[in-house]
Formats: sequence, C-alpha cells, structure tokens
Amino acid sequence: MAGRRPGQTQTREDILVAARNQFGQHGYNGATIRGIAAEAGVNPALVHHFFGSKEQVFVAALNVPINPSTLADLITQGPRDQIGERIVRLFLGLWSSPETSQTFLALVRSVAGNEQIASLMRQFLEHTVVGPVSKALELPRLRITGAAAQAFGLAMARYVIRVEPLASATDDEVVELVAPVLQYYFAP
Amino acid sequence: MAGRRPGQTQTREDILVAARNQFGQHGYNGATIRGIAAEAGVNPALVHHFFGSKEQVFVAALNVPINPSTLADLITQGPRDQIGERIVRLFLGLWSSPETSQTFLALVRSVAGNEQIASLMRQFLEHTVVGPVSKALELPRLRITGAAAQAFGLAMARYVIRVEPLASATDDEVVELVAPVLQYYFAP
Repeated sequence: MAGRRPGQTQTREDILVAARNQFGQHGYNGATIRGIAAEAGVNPALVHHFFGSKEQVFVAALNVPINPSTLADLITQGPRDQIGERIVRLFLGLWSSPETSQTFLALVRSVAGNEQIASLMRQFLEHTVVGPVSKALELPRLRITGAAAQAFGLAMARYVIRVEPLASATDDEVVELVAPVLQYYFAP
Repeated sequence: MAGRRPGQTQTREDILVAARNQFGQHGYNGATIRGIAAEAGVNPALVHHFFGSKEQVFVAALNVPINPSTLADLITQGPRDQIGERIVRLFLGLWSSPETSQTFLALVRSVAGNEQIASLMRQFLEHTVVGPVSKALELPRLRITGAAAQAFGLAMARYVIRVEPLASATDDEVVELVAPVLQYYFAP
C-alpha cells in the first residue's frame, strides 16, 4: 500500500466489495468488469487499471493467494514424469510461506463454510484451472478434479485438522507420500 | 425418538451439551464420562445407559455420522487387494444416503470453520481411526493420514465445492478414479 493515496485505497476497496456482490449474484461467468464498475460507481477503465482482468479482480476479491494462470503454468510446464513432485513442492511452499498460508487457510475455511463462496470457487476452478490444465495436458477433466481433491484434502488434514503424523511430517516425507498420487492423476 | 419421553430427551440433550463443553475444554483424551455427567448433573451410569462408551458420546455430540469402530473394521476386514475400492464405495454410500449426507456435510463445514471442532476431530481421528487401522494393517500411521486426506478432499471437491465433472460423475467413475489412490496408501 506504500505510496497509495487514501482516496485510491478507498476506491480499490469499494471495487472489491462490488466485485464480491457481483460475483455472488451473477457467478464467475455472469459477472462483468462493467457491472462491477457500475456497482462501485467508477469507470470500468479504473477497474482494469487497478486489477487487470476479471480473473484478477476475482483473485483480489476472494483473496486467492496465487494467480491461477501461474498455477496452471507451473503444473503444465516442466517434465511430465516429475509433475507429481513439482505440484506437491509448490503446494508445500505456498502453505509454509507466511505471506500466503494465512490467506489460504482463510480461503479453505470460507469455501467450506459459505455456500456462495463455494459456488464461486467451483466456477473459478472449472474455468481457470481444470479447463486450461486439462487442455494443456490432454487429460480428461475428471482426472484434474481428482488431483484438486487430493490437494484440498491435504490442506484440510495437514493445516486445518492438523492430524498427526501428517501435520508434523517434513516436506520430503509429504512429497514421498503424496507425489505418486498426483503423478497418477496427471500421468495415468 | 419414537417412544422416548420428553424428560429423557431433555436429559439426553443436556448430556450432549455437557459433552461438547467437556471435549472442548479437555480434549478427547482428557474428557471423561464422569466429568460430562457432573456437568450435566446426572449419574455417570445414565451417560453409559444413553450412549455406551466415551467414543459413542463423542460421535453423538459432534454428530459424526458413522461409528469409527465400524469404519475401522470395514477398512481392515476383507481382501487387502480390494481395500481401495471397498473404502471408496463405503464413502460414496455414506454420502449418498439422506440419513448421513447432511450430518457429514455439517461436520466437514464445522471442522473447517471452527478451530475447537478441528482440534477435537484431530484427536478423535488419531485415537479411533489412524491408530487402530495402522495397527491392524501394520502400516505407518502417515499412510493412513494420507488416505484420510484424500477422503476429506473428495468430500470437499465433490460435495462442498461440487466442482465438475467430479460432482456429477457416477459412483463407478469415482471408484475408477480414486480407488487406485486409496489402494496405494493402504497397500504400498
């Protein structure tokens, strides 16, 4: 926020509030930058200026701690026979970083506890992760959702429920345990 | 509740409220039937009469929709080479039954949203599922928690987030997708 004037901060926050409402009312596909701008009482160009694309507005509004295009790239780029280990290490890195772990935890909690946020997460996942990754790897979408389920469950068990010995396992132990599963989903 | 008199229903409910408090304050291990009875102002024999063991009080207090001993038996009994499919079919059956699906959904939501319930679920899982299954199958506890993570994640993705095409997949498609993963965790 350094260097940002108070008026800008307020405008940005107004846009995010409008975005949550618009995504909630119209879903990820139905919501538009134009509609979000109208509700916030600003010019659509300002929404583009602050956030870029609709995807980015969503990422900011729901506090998604990683850009889904980056995520899709990290999954699909690199050797196919190391895809399982690559994803688990990326996942562990995001969850062990103080910058992203708290927002991830809040996101998992709100997805589980709030029907509207679950619905947005569904549409968002389908359009920005499952679709693109399935296309890039030429795999059925069902397999990508199986991998997503394993990742969600690992987050729940290790970081929300913190069941032992999974919660205290080292990164290498988790990689050894879970990488073969993601490898199976992505390279059957 | 058929045939139960109003006074009994009230007493039963008082015991469950006391149980949630006692489990919350002392954890699964620290809580006792005696302490629960004392808080509810009843004789410990009455708690035994209504629920049986401490495990059963917990199951009732947190609305866990399946008896963990039954779950552990279903996992450990039967051919080892069909353990993955057996668990997925059991899981799908519980989630498709109107009697258990709503309580499962409520449980997943409260575990994710409430730190105290997550902590109770952790202790409960460790003592009544992970420990016994690990012992019966002579497998490291870490592998059992990996399988539990996959099951939690499948619940989140298919029934809470309802991401497609996983949400609409048939039971047989889900078995084909996920059974090999559970087979891997339980029979490496």
